[in-house]
Amino acid sequence: MAFDTNDDTMSRSETYDLISSEKVDGTAVFNRNGDKLGTVHHFMVGKRDGRVRYAVMSFGGLFGMGERYHPLPWDVLTYDTEKGGYAVDLDKDKLEGAPSYERGSEPTYDRIYGEQVYGYYGVPY
Amino acid sequence: MAFDTNDDTMSRSETYDLISSEKVDGTAVFNRNGDKLGTVHHFMVGKRDGRVRYAVMSFGGLFGMGERYHPLPWDVLTYDTEKGGYAVDLDKDKLEGAPSYERGSEPTYDRIYGEQVYGYYGVPY
Repeated sequence: MAFDTNDDTMSRSETYDLISSEKVDGTAVFNRNGDKLGTVHHFMVGKRDGRVRYAVMSFGGLFGMGERYHPLPWDVLTYDTEKGGYAVDLDKDKLEGAPSYERGSEPTYDRIYGEQVYGYYGVPY
Repeated sequence: MAFDTNDDTMSRSETYDLISSEKVDGTAVFNRNGDKLGTVHHFMVGKRDGRVRYAVMSFGGLFGMGERYHPLPWDVLTYDTEKGGYAVDLDKDKLEGAPSYERGSEPTYDRIYGEQVYGYYGVPY
């Protein structure tokens, strides 16, 4: 996703494309039809390179399976300024079968897990 | 700063270079002598490109001027795995004169502010 400071559709409240790490929790996630799928719970960020690797979504309730966390590779997300959230091109079946975990059962975010999750979504780790 | 997955000095607890956005608060910041200067309060992250632009440090107490937030360009930070924190090559005078703000007086993180802050530290915005 390119960084575009000339996006004249960007609203004043968007604070010029930056968001505090304290405030990512709750950002909406939509599918391509505009239906809300869930919300961002947190980002996983590289301590050295400062790159977000995953947006970890919570999709609790939607599929009736309690709150679960789905780590999504950053590259499958597109920020939608008008909606103020992220769009993903994923259907329900794809998400239901995706790597996920329950609260308190966080995975080790190592390379093996990275390749598994990124691989599921068809993007290179 | 390069992303290096082959860093064999990385401890197991470092979770392979990733940190949750929920947990950046409190990460220590050291100078080159190893003296602790303060802690990370939050990151400012590009919503579109997923890049951390600033680590906002709180240096409260150290200089006897109450808690102030100093946004530091990402490029002036180096993650120190052994210390589990960030090293910066900045002396006290440089930090005291740096762009900063008090709680509740957050700046608008736009391009003008970015050029001001990055310029102060001598790195391109």
